[in-house]
Amino acid sequence: MTDLNLKGIIAYPITPYSKNGELDLNALKEIIEKLIATEANAITVLGSAGESAYLEVDEWQQVLATSIQTINKRVPILCGIAELKTSTVIEKINIAEKLGVDGHMIIPLSYWKLSDAEILNFYQEVSKNCTKPIMLYNNPATSGIDMKPELIVEIFNKCKAVTIVKESTGDINRLHKIRELSNNSIPVYCGSNSIALEFLSAGGKGWCSAAPNIIGDLPSKLFKAIESQNLDLSKEIFYKIYPFLDFIVKGGLVKTVKAAYQIQGKNYGEGRKPLLPLSKDEKNKLGKILVKLQ
Amino acid sequence: MTDLNLKGIIAYPITPYSKNGELDLNALKEIIEKLIATEANAITVLGSAGESAYLEVDEWQQVLATSIQTINKRVPILCGIAELKTSTVIEKINIAEKLGVDGHMIIPLSYWKLSDAEILNFYQEVSKNCTKPIMLYNNPATSGIDMKPELIVEIFNKCKAVTIVKESTGDINRLHKIRELSNNSIPVYCGSNSIALEFLSAGGKGWCSAAPNIIGDLPSKLFKAIESQNLDLSKEIFYKIYPFLDFIVKGGLVKTVKAAYQIQGKNYGEGRKPLLPLSKDEKNKLGKILVKLQ
Amino acid sequence: MTDLNLKGIIAYPITPYSKNGELDLNALKEIIEKLIATEANAITVLGSAGESAYLEVDEWQQVLATSIQTINKRVPILCGIAELKTSTVIEKINIAEKLGVDGHMIIPLSYWKLSDAEILNFYQEVSKNCTKPIMLYNNPATSGIDMKPELIVEIFNKCKAVTIVKESTGDINRLHKIRELSNNSIPVYCGSNSIALEFLSAGGKGWCSAAPNIIGDLPSKLFKAIESQNLDLSKEIFYKIYPFLDFIVKGGLVKTVKAAYQIQGKNYGEGRKPLLPLSKDEKNKLGKILVKLQ
Amino acid sequence: MTDLNLKGIIAYPITPYSKNGELDLNALKEIIEKLIATEANAITVLGSAGESAYLEVDEWQQVLATSIQTINKRVPILCGIAELKTSTVIEKINIAEKLGVDGHMIIPLSYWKLSDAEILNFYQEVSKNCTKPIMLYNNPATSGIDMKPELIVEIFNKCKAVTIVKESTGDINRLHKIRELSNNSIPVYCGSNSIALEFLSAGGKGWCSAAPNIIGDLPSKLFKAIESQNLDLSKEIFYKIYPFLDFIVKGGLVKTVKAAYQIQGKNYGEGRKPLLPLSKDEKNKLGKILVKLQ
Repeated sequence: MTDLNLKGIIAYPITPYSKNGELDLNALKEIIEKLIATEANAITVLGSAGESAYLEVDEWQQVLATSIQTINKRVPILCGIAELKTSTVIEKINIAEKLGVDGHMIIPLSYWKLSDAEILNFYQEVSKNCTKPIMLYNNPATSGIDMKPELIVEIFNKCKAVTIVKESTGDINRLHKIRELSNNSIPVYCGSNSIALEFLSAGGKGWCSAAPNIIGDLPSKLFKAIESQNLDLSKEIFYKIYPFLDFIVKGGLVKTVKAAYQIQGKNYGEGRKPLLPLSKDEKNKLGKILVKLQ
Repeated sequence: MTDLNLKGIIAYPITPYSKNGELDLNALKEIIEKLIATEANAITVLGSAGESAYLEVDEWQQVLATSIQTINKRVPILCGIAELKTSTVIEKINIAEKLGVDGHMIIPLSYWKLSDAEILNFYQEVSKNCTKPIMLYNNPATSGIDMKPELIVEIFNKCKAVTIVKESTGDINRLHKIRELSNNSIPVYCGSNSIALEFLSAGGKGWCSAAPNIIGDLPSKLFKAIESQNLDLSKEIFYKIYPFLDFIVKGGLVKTVKAAYQIQGKNYGEGRKPLLPLSKDEKNKLGKILVKLQ
Repeated sequence: MTDLNLKGIIAYPITPYSKNGELDLNALKEIIEKLIATEANAITVLGSAGESAYLEVDEWQQVLATSIQTINKRVPILCGIAELKTSTVIEKINIAEKLGVDGHMIIPLSYWKLSDAEILNFYQEVSKNCTKPIMLYNNPATSGIDMKPELIVEIFNKCKAVTIVKESTGDINRLHKIRELSNNSIPVYCGSNSIALEFLSAGGKGWCSAAPNIIGDLPSKLFKAIESQNLDLSKEIFYKIYPFLDFIVKGGLVKTVKAAYQIQGKNYGEGRKPLLPLSKDEKNKLGKILVKLQ
Repeated sequence: MTDLNLKGIIAYPITPYSKNGELDLNALKEIIEKLIATEANAITVLGSAGESAYLEVDEWQQVLATSIQTINKRVPILCGIAELKTSTVIEKINIAEKLGVDGHMIIPLSYWKLSDAEILNFYQEVSKNCTKPIMLYNNPATSGIDMKPELIVEIFNKCKAVTIVKESTGDINRLHKIRELSNNSIPVYCGSNSIALEFLSAGGKGWCSAAPNIIGDLPSKLFKAIESQNLDLSKEIFYKIYPFLDFIVKGGLVKTVKAAYQIQGKNYGEGRKPLLPLSKDEKNKLGKILVKLQ
């Protein structure tokens, strides 16, 4: 499997809509240019922040095609795939590879709880149908499935396409355990914004985040500060952006990032229903957090 | 809103597949005839047991159309709708009403966690777009959303189409609380098989179950025993079927009910991947449970 | 081991204090007379409601001695023992047996979490040092230890003094499982007030409760209604007292029962610090609940 | 209130017993000398690892007196107090201050759950009865009470004796939140061994640990590496000791540290019943972990 040779910040664009609620592909291009300018090392489209789960198939495909064209190989692009049925996941992998994606971020979804055997089998089937690397994505809060370090390491060992892990439980011990069980052979990315400082300090390979949409290159600066072992600077940056990170984690990425864009003068629409926009109070609170960041 | 005038057992067919994994509509007719013969008071198709979440839209529509034709007004038919987007729920409501359904069983699904305000708004929008009654379905284990009694009663009061509640948390205290908060004005159905005895004893209006697929009229007999205040008989029936109920709750309805059908000589296929069939050991255990039931 | 031959209501007195915070043994006698008058089938002193955990050893002994004298063999008396160290449990067993208790209610306490092997070993040691029957008491909310049905049945089988189980998790499925695993050979008592209706309907042998302190013979009437298979009357009684039961479960027995006594004109003091009395609002709410019960 | 002027490693001795299960005060002196030699900046006796909860009052006092004499002001000494009743906590504070302790580590214990108002009131009463500083200790896994950052900061602001916090939930986000809510004015110590690297990297003032009993000055070296912003060395040390830290957290400090001492040739007895010693398998596993550490 190709090595994507990643590290550092992987930025996640939101999916912008025009006033009538339809995809706004020009706005998407604008957002992607902005993310590249934040010194993100890679971009993942159609992640949780990109409302992957709330898009129609043709919309999903348009977002992906437009993103690939816009990025134009300046940085690697991965695309998020989150589907209940294995067959649909494989269909999307095929579409994405034809369009020219560099890698896939794949999370198993649950309606019925899946056993460890079912999750392993899922990744085995998916891996066999891939020519590009897979980032295994563990995020029980959205997917309803929690993959423990033991299972993640087993999947990594048995599925050759699975070469990267994104851990979003918020439990830093998972990083320790994956590292211990794999002899530090798995690149693990932080998927939990509010513990990025610790994740990177403890050996995480990078940080997957929608935060660059709003706070620009501060995530990238945090990564570099830790890489150069400047803990004082790392803490300074992290605690500066922490109120923002905490707010978007607790409030839900789609709502909060779109609201932050609005505060910054960019109207990219709201999340689709049943999601509602932030309340006025929440938006005021977010506004104050953003003011302090300037 | 029409009163469905329900009580007692509401039976849930599984969705049968032929050997190539496609819908087997003849088998579906067979299953529905069987369920009617168990003295079920109503039938809900495309519930969790019916793999609603794992069907394509056209399959979902075929199952519904075939079921309506087969039932042919002998008992009321409801259909399950479980979708992430509000707009898709409303589309399915429209399809179902055109096809002639008597009511809807609607559960909000979460990728992003929904606030109480979002859930209420969801049911309000859905309710406005309905001409048939809605059974509000609370099942956090599959949907990722837990609607507390306070919220359920508020939805019931504010959404005129919502006239029935199905409670599947397994916590019998929810029934007490809904009853207290609504002055016993909401018909609440048991959605947690392994506490059916208690739910009905404590005033539940009926029991929603896939168990009649396999154990025929025993659920109906349990309901009647409790209705006639024969607790000795109720306990006798319940503890006879309890090992089966406990097994299907813990093992997952789709897998276990399909495996039980196979043991009974009916091959209706397996759940779709990533679901895997029961292991040999589990199937043996299930076989022993079924033998004791004869 | 002697068979206590229990069924029905086991009443739990609170521990009354005089104005200076010391034991009020005359008040205790008054309370016990009241409980016997509620047609309780047995009395357990020094349970959770009796503040066992907050008494000095000599106080514990005085409460027990006074209770035994007052009851004077009219009904069986058990005493609660809740201690971190096995050796202290055995010391209290010896004291209690010398004073003339009929049985012990014993709960393992945790500072360090105990493994199943440690819990089994605990009951084995305790059982060897007993001449009176033990009621095994499972209440993870207070003790920090949850004994699953499998473990409870194993303890019952291996410890001859353990002859009764009190289940207080609030999960009615525990009753089913204990019954299934033991072939219905273990008498199980309800320790969770707000599910008493269901517990008794489903075959529970009786109900351990502090509620008779305040609502007199209503628990006893509920038990008899279920025993005579009168579900309509059972529901009528249960839903009448349910708001009170729900209040004392959520508010904490010591505070709420003492506050209820105060509302009824009996000042038996407050729970010991760090416990604080009910707030004014809570007390008003409780007052309204009690008014409706008259 | 005196400033203890602490930072770095606070070491926690176990409590040694002789063969007959009685306190072995000579062994205690030996252990304390050893801990001082690990460059611990302070010592807390009678913490969780010291079996505070399983000692009689006179034993508790003997351990404290012997420790104070042995330390003889070379480093500050705190003592752990964990009691259900507020009055008993205050009695122990008085004893400890008379014996010459430098500070107290105080955790509220729960039999009945305590409300935030009760916990605040508890620390207020305790604070008023202190002349030495208090380390507020949050460890829900043992105490049954979880103090959220908001409450901790409120207690810190309202109780002048409370000047230090020990956070043992294992959730690194608590550190961020306490820092944010208090404008970084509260010194917070790590009480969760397996996240020490992250806690110190993110601004924790120090690390409370029983690990120095067994792994000597490695905790102290980790602290210094982080203090000098040498993240490479920090990770090297941390991942070297991580298997040991993970083992003692999951296995329970008393059992595992005493077993480790036995493996190192020091027999300080076992934890008191109901605690049982490590099984042979667990001890073998621990042995292998220790071999790799040499």
